[in-house]
Amino acid sequence: MAAERIATVAPIAEADAKGKVAEIYADIKQTKNINFVPNLWRVLATNPDHLELVWTRLKALMHPEAAGRQSKLDATTREMIALAVSATNGCAYCVNSHTAALKKLGLDNEALGEVLAIVGLFNTTNTLADGYQIEADILPPLE
Amino acid sequence: MAAERIATVAPIAEADAKGKVAEIYADIKQTKNINFVPNLWRVLATNPDHLELVWTRLKALMHPEAAGRQSKLDATTREMIALAVSATNGCAYCVNSHTAALKKLGLDNEALGEVLAIVGLFNTTNTLADGYQIEADILPPLE
Amino acid sequence: MAAERIATVAPIAEADAKGKVAEIYADIKQTKNINFVPNLWRVLATNPDHLELVWTRLKALMHPEAAGRQSKLDATTREMIALAVSATNGCAYCVNSHTAALKKLGLDNEALGEVLAIVGLFNTTNTLADGYQIEADILPPLE
Amino acid sequence: MAAERIATVAPIAEADAKGKVAEIYADIKQTKNINFVPNLWRVLATNPDHLELVWTRLKALMHPEAAGRQSKLDATTREMIALAVSATNGCAYCVNSHTAALKKLGLDNEALGEVLAIVGLFNTTNTLADGYQIEADILPPLE
Amino acid sequence: MAAERIATVAPIAEADAKGKVAEIYADIKQTKNINFVPNLWRVLATNPDHLELVWTRLKALMHPEAAGRQSKLDATTREMIALAVSATNGCAYCVNSHTAALKKLGLDNEALGEVLAIVGLFNTTNTLADGYQIEADILPPLE
Amino acid sequence: MAAERIATVAPIAEADAKGKVAEIYADIKQTKNINFVPNLWRVLATNPDHLELVWTRLKALMHPEAAGRQSKLDATTREMIALAVSATNGCAYCVNSHTAALKKLGLDNEALGEVLAIVGLFNTTNTLADGYQIEADILPPLE
Repeated sequence: MAAERIATVAPIAEADAKGKVAEIYADIKQTKNINFVPNLWRVLATNPDHLELVWTRLKALMHPEAAGRQSKLDATTREMIALAVSATNGCAYCVNSHTAALKKLGLDNEALGEVLAIVGLFNTTNTLADGYQIEADILPPLE
Repeated sequence: MAAERIATVAPIAEADAKGKVAEIYADIKQTKNINFVPNLWRVLATNPDHLELVWTRLKALMHPEAAGRQSKLDATTREMIALAVSATNGCAYCVNSHTAALKKLGLDNEALGEVLAIVGLFNTTNTLADGYQIEADILPPLE
Repeated sequence: MAAERIATVAPIAEADAKGKVAEIYADIKQTKNINFVPNLWRVLATNPDHLELVWTRLKALMHPEAAGRQSKLDATTREMIALAVSATNGCAYCVNSHTAALKKLGLDNEALGEVLAIVGLFNTTNTLADGYQIEADILPPLE
Repeated sequence: MAAERIATVAPIAEADAKGKVAEIYADIKQTKNINFVPNLWRVLATNPDHLELVWTRLKALMHPEAAGRQSKLDATTREMIALAVSATNGCAYCVNSHTAALKKLGLDNEALGEVLAIVGLFNTTNTLADGYQIEADILPPLE
Repeated sequence: MAAERIATVAPIAEADAKGKVAEIYADIKQTKNINFVPNLWRVLATNPDHLELVWTRLKALMHPEAAGRQSKLDATTREMIALAVSATNGCAYCVNSHTAALKKLGLDNEALGEVLAIVGLFNTTNTLADGYQIEADILPPLE
Repeated sequence: MAAERIATVAPIAEADAKGKVAEIYADIKQTKNINFVPNLWRVLATNPDHLELVWTRLKALMHPEAAGRQSKLDATTREMIALAVSATNGCAYCVNSHTAALKKLGLDNEALGEVLAIVGLFNTTNTLADGYQIEADILPPLE
């Protein structure tokens, strides 16, 4: 079966996955409880070692229970952080993906608006702190 | 009293603050429950209208109770979002400030490490999604 | 002949190019050994001085032999650097253009994956170094 | 005479400049009407071709009369654009340099505050437009 | 009336706006002298508090007369700064919007090219200053 | 022994490293053939899981032989890509580290200048492509 062409490389279709790639595809679907392999992973599969490195790390950080780790943050907080990074970087695929994840976790549009309002605010204050070259406040040390 | 020189403009010392600036300085100290005015605000005070615009917005979003609003996010989550933005932008003043705020809220170094690990991860996946020009996954619509 | 509208300004079609613009269009096609003028250059031609400044600099750096310079880097390395910058900035046009150039130079998808894996990795470590405000290592001086 | 070490390479001191580098150093001092060569140019001089490419382009755009061009923008507007870029990128050297240039051109702190307020505002709206993936407004065409 | 779906959330159509949102929509159309509400504002309206915070700040800075403030910058300069930020961030919606505003203010394509040439130049020098870690020039103090 | 305080968290000194952290410290020194543990790793060690995730990935990509992988890129090319990313992001620690690595690999200042010249050039063209919203060139497909 021919893989369709997306972006700058042809992604590896599920039907074409073999060996390590097939195993990771199966793990992605089971860990994320979805019935398809998102485009990001099908594109990374053009270099199987790279696919493995990114998936191992993302699984450990975003699906800690599945990776046998314990997280101090809940799933919604983790996805909000991901959205904050993605909006700051202006990455369209990433914004779509993390907004969908947040909505699936139950976040409504008003709360989403609050997250992006905070993201927007700190893109202002970051710019101002850099634009005025403001020095760190000397604080009493935290032990 | 002469203001000391920081960065590209001389900040307005507390002793030199008058009118609107003095009122905002007092509000900052009370709202944040601190006994000094951080450098960011003392520098913004060189343009009092600008000081007011930024403080009004930051107070509404980060100190919602003081501004008579109700937030769907807790204070720690809000500061984590701020840190995610600041680390992504590489803004030194901002990283310092939000890390200090998170520690004051009780976040330990291991949890801080988890926040930054997630921030780092999505700076990778953002770059990969953009670097391969990956198209959005077609998802079943969320109602 | 009417130029088609792309983006925010109408690009200058090859048939409409005169004087300095026509000369640069011819030089671009000859230097790059292509039979069309890419959109970037046709848009820059709306300000002929700007077209000349950018083309002169790009030709000197990316086509050094044509510009009578000698480069210490080979063409593939130069394009990899261009792709690293473009993926980090999330510039779609640029990613497309430099990926196409690398493929024309013979880079296969697995090697492309390795380049982007390294680009992704250092977008993580950059974020971590900034997010923790890590100080430079004091190294024994290089002579 | 030994050049002092700044940053990652040793800059070329004025006393050590020869040939093309010495000519460009003289042109920089005359064009900018200053009596020293700023660090940026002394570092770029470690690769004389690169120094020439950057200086030629900067002279054409920022000192158009000296380069025999006519600009549609005045010097203050040009420096404000440079500061907007530098604050958005968080480049310390650049913010310093363009703030100094604006003050030399007569901009006071309140006006500087207005420039940075606008820069901060659009770092917010940019993030929001990207964070919500907002589509372009369909406007009646401008003729 | 059903709102159409744009981006990650469904924008609030003008016909569906009530209370605070309806008032702000009216103010946007009057202040900007346009007969529709741009997508940015209709999306922000999914969180009415956020809509108000951003509009209040944008009105104060970009439409100062309407907000009862006096600006030291003219409207074209303000929009050029907005475009410089937007091009640097690579924000498509924002570039479209501010380019349209500049053309409406009378800027022609050659002048637009000069603005973007300067924006491009300082994205180079910013990268070089950071890439070489260049230290600030020690300047005689400005009084 | 008390660890000294750097940045926002106290790094873990080599003398204080235990278990997984001690093992990774030893692997870093052996793999990189250095006799100290750079600050980045000592700070990441405040969250040992995070240290392991980043080191495993960096070792696989930047020290492929030590990780039992085969790379299609040589060590100098890999470090040039790292420097391109770091200069584009303006990350001081990272620029220092990768410049030192490149010099150790034998790159001289003129070649370093050529790398940064290319990095600077594409920060310009990226900005221009985004600033004009230039559409992808329709190219004959690469097989």
